[in-house]
This record gives sequence, C-alpha cells and structure tokens, in this order.
Amino acid sequence: MTTGHATANGARVIADLNELRAIGAYKSGVHKPTFSPEHMQSLAWLLRKLPDAGLSGTIDGIGNLIGTGETAGPRMLAGSHLESQSHAGWLDGPLGVVYALEAARIINNDPNISGSVEVAAWCDEEGHFGSLLGSRSYVGDVAEAEIDAARDRSNGRAMRDALRDVGLAGLPRASVERGRYLGYLEAHIEQGDTLETRGLKIGVVTSIVGIWQYRITFTGAQNHAGTTRMATRKDAGLALAHFCVAIDQRFPDFASVRTVWTTGRITLDPGAPSIIPGSAEMLFQIRDDDPDVVVRLESLLQAMAKEATAAGPCAVSIECIRVGVPAPMDAGIQDAVEGAAEVHAPSRSLRMHSGAGHDAQILARVMPAGMLFVPSIGGISHHWTENTSDEDIALGATVFVEACRRVLTATC
Amino acid sequence: MTTGHATANGARVIADLNELRAIGAYKSGVHKPTFSPEHMQSLAWLLRKLPDAGLSGTIDGIGNLIGTGETAGPRMLAGSHLESQSHAGWLDGPLGVVYALEAARIINNDPNISGSVEVAAWCDEEGHFGSLLGSRSYVGDVAEAEIDAARDRSNGRAMRDALRDVGLAGLPRASVERGRYLGYLEAHIEQGDTLETRGLKIGVVTSIVGIWQYRITFTGAQNHAGTTRMATRKDAGLALAHFCVAIDQRFPDFASVRTVWTTGRITLDPGAPSIIPGSAEMLFQIRDDDPDVVVRLESLLQAMAKEATAAGPCAVSIECIRVGVPAPMDAGIQDAVEGAAEVHAPSRSLRMHSGAGHDAQILARVMPAGMLFVPSIGGISHHWTENTSDEDIALGATVFVEACRRVLTATC
Repeated sequence: MTTGHATANGARVIADLNELRAIGAYKSGVHKPTFSPEHMQSLAWLLRKLPDAGLSGTIDGIGNLIGTGETAGPRMLAGSHLESQSHAGWLDGPLGVVYALEAARIINNDPNISGSVEVAAWCDEEGHFGSLLGSRSYVGDVAEAEIDAARDRSNGRAMRDALRDVGLAGLPRASVERGRYLGYLEAHIEQGDTLETRGLKIGVVTSIVGIWQYRITFTGAQNHAGTTRMATRKDAGLALAHFCVAIDQRFPDFASVRTVWTTGRITLDPGAPSIIPGSAEMLFQIRDDDPDVVVRLESLLQAMAKEATAAGPCAVSIECIRVGVPAPMDAGIQDAVEGAAEVHAPSRSLRMHSGAGHDAQILARVMPAGMLFVPSIGGISHHWTENTSDEDIALGATVFVEACRRVLTATC
Repeated sequence: MTTGHATANGARVIADLNELRAIGAYKSGVHKPTFSPEHMQSLAWLLRKLPDAGLSGTIDGIGNLIGTGETAGPRMLAGSHLESQSHAGWLDGPLGVVYALEAARIINNDPNISGSVEVAAWCDEEGHFGSLLGSRSYVGDVAEAEIDAARDRSNGRAMRDALRDVGLAGLPRASVERGRYLGYLEAHIEQGDTLETRGLKIGVVTSIVGIWQYRITFTGAQNHAGTTRMATRKDAGLALAHFCVAIDQRFPDFASVRTVWTTGRITLDPGAPSIIPGSAEMLFQIRDDDPDVVVRLESLLQAMAKEATAAGPCAVSIECIRVGVPAPMDAGIQDAVEGAAEVHAPSRSLRMHSGAGHDAQILARVMPAGMLFVPSIGGISHHWTENTSDEDIALGATVFVEACRRVLTATC
C-alpha cells in the first residue's frame, strides 16, 4: 500500500545522522555537551541543510536553532536536540532533528501539499546547564535570572560565560508565535526495550511521565565503630538500607504497571569506615503519567517513614523536592502517527507512554504535541553503545514524514 | 584501706588536662590535628612539665615526645597522644599522657620506690597522616618510604612538608631500647558506655580488637531511570541495600558478644538521581579480639555473596582490604590494674576488651602492655561533647599511679 506521496529518503536520513555522528565522535557514539565546539558545529551543519527544505534558520540567545519558511498555509513544528549527554549515544536528539529536516525536505518541496514543516533544535535538552532550558525558553518559561544562575554541572562554568564564548550573548530569545503551528511532532529512540522485546517498530507516545523527586533523610547518632555495642547503635546508614528494601517490597502493591522508582544517590555522613553514620540521605525518584498513582505512593512513603521512626532507632523524614507534571500527548497527533504506522509498518506499532522527559512535554503547553519512538537495540541509552538498526531508522523516518503529512492535511 | 604510698593528686591532674584543653579549644572540646600549632604547643607544654617528674624530653623525627630520666632500677613506660581528632573531645589522648605524667611525678619523686616511670606522647594516633605512625615508628615498623608517601587526609599536604614546617625534618626517630622497660601502661577514656551503664569506674583491658575491612562490590547494569521497566532492572544500589539488611539479620547468629560490624561508606555509581546505579560499593568493617570469630563471619559473608549473585540480578564480590591483628594485653599488667582498682574502687572494675585501636596494641609487640579505661559520659567519643566526670578522672589517676607502682614493685 502506498500513500501516493513522496516518502522519506532513508539513505539520506542515515547519511545525515552519520555526518552528525562524525562531529564529536566518541567510540561508536558522540561527546558533544551543550555549547561545546562539537555542539556548535552540529548546529552549523543544520543551518547549512535547512535551505534544502526551503527554510532559513537562526540560533537564538539561548542556543535554540529554529528554521522557518515563507510558505503560507498550515504549518507543523518538528525537532529535537543536537547536543548530547557526555560520552553517550549518536541518536539521542539527532534522530528527531534529522527526521524533522527530512519531513521538511519532503513536504515543503511537495507541490501537492499546501502546508509546511518547520524545524527546531532545542538547546540543552540533556540538562548540562538546567532542565529543558531551550524549549522552556521558547514557551516563555525561562527568566533571565535563571540563565544568570545556570552553571555547567560538570565544571561549574557560568552559562552566561558559555553563551558569550559561542557568540550568543545578547541575542534575542525566540518565543512561540501562538497559532503559527497545528502541532509539534518529535521523534526519539525509545531508550527502553519494550518495542524490541515485542518485535514492534513504532511507538505512538500517549504521554510523557512526570518526575517526582524526594530527599529522604535518616537521623541516628554518629559514634565510634569500635566502642559502640551493636545493641545501642543508631546507625543511619543501616536504617536507610532497611528503608530501600521496604520500598522494594511494598511499592509494587500500590504502583501502576507503568510506575518506575529509583534510588540514584546515597550519602552516609560522615562516610568514614570507622564511624557509625549519624545521618544518611537518599535521592529517590518516582515517574508516572498518572499523578493519582504518585499521590498514593507518596502517602505510602510517608506512612513508611512514620512507622520506621516509631520503630526506631533512627528518625526518617521525607521532603518532596520536585513535583512531576505529566504531559498527555495530543489525541489527533497520536492518531496521525498510528495511522502512518499502519500504512508503513502494519500491526507493528504500540501506544505507549514515555518514561523519559523530552522537549515535547514543554511544547505541549502551547500547542498540540506528539511523539514517535523507534526501537532501541537492547534498550540501551545514555551510553555510547546506544543504537537502532538502519532499517528501523529508515522505517521510522517514513512513518514520521507520513504522520506530519497527515496532521497537515487532516487525514488522520 | 591505704597503700602507704603517695597517691595521685587529682586536682593537679584535672588542672593539667584543662591547661591542655585551653590549647586549641573548640566548644567544650579541642581541635588540634597532627602538627597543627596547637598540637605542637601541647607537646611544648609537656616538655615544660617533665622536669617536675625528673625527666627530660625530646621530640623525635616523626613527632613522638619521649621523656626519659637518669634513675636506675626498673622502669615503666606510660603515655598516649596529644593531637586530637578534628573538632573532637578533650580527653581522647591527653588523659593518658597526663596520667603518665602524674605517675612519673609521684613515683619518680617517691624515695620509697626504687623504680621510675617514663612518659611518651605518641604522634598521630588519630591517623591524620597514617595509622598509629608514632608508636609504629618507635617499634621499628615505619620505613622512610611510608613517611615519604604519607599525606594529611583532610587536605593532601605531604607529611614531609608538615615535618619540615614544625622543625622536625631530619631529626632521628626514637626507637625502643629492648629491655629498658618492665612494661607499658596506657590510660584512655572508654569511648563506649559499658562502664557507665553498669555503674563501674575502671576498665581493665584484656585485649585490643583487630580491625578487618572489606570492600563489597555490586555489579548490575547502568540504565535510564525513566525508560527501564522495574522487571528488567539490575539496580546495584538496591542489591547493596538488600545485602546490608541481610548482614543485619544473619551476623548475630555467627558473631561473638563482643563483635561489632559497620558499613561506614556507600557509593553508588554514577550517583545521579535519574540513572539506575550500574555498580555500588560499601566499605564494611568487622572488629573482634578473636580471629576465629572473624574467619566464621568472613565465610558467612562469602556465602551470602555467592547466594546473592546466584539469585541475581546483580553480582556481589567481597575483597578483604585489611586484616585485623588483635593484641592481647599482658596478664601481669591486667592483674596490677585490677589490684589497684580493688584498693581504690573496690568491686567497681571490669575486665573488658577495647573496641578501639590504641598505641598500646603497637607497644605490645615489644614489651608487656596494658590499658586502663575510665568511664565516658553517655559513651560519646570523637565528638566535642566527649567527657568524663572530674571525680572519675581523679579516681582513674589514683588507680593508674597505683598500678604503675605495683608493676614496678611486682606487688600485683
């Protein structure tokens, strides 16, 4: 079955992605932190490519690259990001940008389609300086003071200094023109193994989870590890370990099938081999697309802290340090992606949520937004071995272009 | 009952301890790290006091202060240390030095006793630069290369630079003259609450525990905390928590009543809130005075690691990074201390092991050695609130002097 329209050029998409991989190559992946020379060279690469799609681009005062055109008629915005996590994969970000570029090249040059696709590369999606700073700036959610305060997490360098050094200081920041777009579509590697395990090719994203974060603190009594009898200890580290195990045992009964939770950091104080820790802290994260589930889990956590404190010998306290905002994806765009998948990968798509954060969750605040996933080999991500087969990359591009066409022509 | 001999002057002992507390005072404790101006001033204080006991002292090339006399006849060596843990208590170290000074003042000036007491302040017992460096140097267990490599744990400063700055570079290091002493006696605060809880006044130390240390490593798979389903995770941090809890549950059945064990440090790698830890490590310590017990516990640990690895999803490996050497105290000296306690604190002494390390465990390699404990209020140590009542300090001094007399005159 064909659509009667030009489709994505898979070979060109793969060639483009390999050109981007060559900029800042690290093993089979890349290393291009935000505002690194390799990141800026990748933006320059995109600027050179945009005219092929009838677009011209500029980089704004926070590092967003937006490529716009003069074509009248309905417009879609599509994109992702070009900087990478440190020493990480080649597709996390560039895949979505190159798909957007390909959609613009195909659709903007197709005389049978009256609409057009414009292309965005959002800055710092990977959070070297902040949290989704580029797309948040575009929707008007980043004050100058936030940029003043932002520093590179890896070396403490001020974002203002970084912006100055790459020549962006003082430039205006692009902001969304309400009503310009029918919607926003972003493609991404899945970063999990759901598609691969089931032999599927396209994920139709229904929502992006919210991230809730908690600082859980255990207070005992610091003492000498040699002279303090076991029976009289108030070991905050041991209390923490018991709490982690209790979460592992009790959360499944209260979580949804989609909920994930993680203890990513543990600190014992003072952290010396001969001292019983007097206090301990863990950073604990819950992700879900349903706030009601998290409310339930948060109540459970608080009850567990109360029980543990009452049982002793350490006090447990829980502080919520980040409240999640799940972002449902637009129903019409979901239908467009699913319809496109039915044409090019019949019965091999799946409606699924995104466990990772993406710029689409920010864009969803100001326009209908959607996402399309392609399979990740082994579910690996944020590592230089991250990969997707060429066939799946090409198929994803074809579905992406068709989904954009469907949104623009309202044939969902 | 009296002994017919001059006894310790409790008021003088307490006054001396307060003079030392005034040097480097921190809240109600002190802050005098090894080779700090306050540590060196404390050594200078002792040098000025020694002539009252018929002794003259010198500071050697590693910072040990040894006060010796010209008196013939049997000799005892007594002492402890004058530097402190950072921002810690006033008695940990100085108590033993001032008791030794008091014993020398009383006994060396007593015409009825033919023997004498000599006084030592061992350098760096608290391990700012190494492990019991001063006393180990005195028994011939510190090579020049160890000093070359030693650095201040808190700031990385080379020990050679510190020695040069306090004027000790190039000085010879004192070493034990075999046969000079009948034995070594060291007094210390208990640093636990055993004496206080039982209403006792004197601990007769039977042995100093050995310290065994292990690096326990958990290997899982680092992955994205949002996109990796709970069922497929290999969370090394969670495996570590389960292992800590298992130790807590299973160790008591295999330990002796004296065994203590501590997890003092935990590290998750990479330690970021949104990343499932791919590996995790804990520093685990066991202290006991019976190596057979530790052999049993080490087998248990290895069996537990094997079980956990087999059960999955993470591999657990155990590396012994320090082997303990328990030091039994000399039976004759134990009898002397107990006999002295029976005179001055009848039925209020207890034979007990030391859970903390002390210079006496090093001196025990070259001469009969013993220790005497006085109660610690609330069992608190290595903290500026560390304290012992004036009455207990004075009583301890009296028992200490009498114990030295008994060793010298062989009336145990």
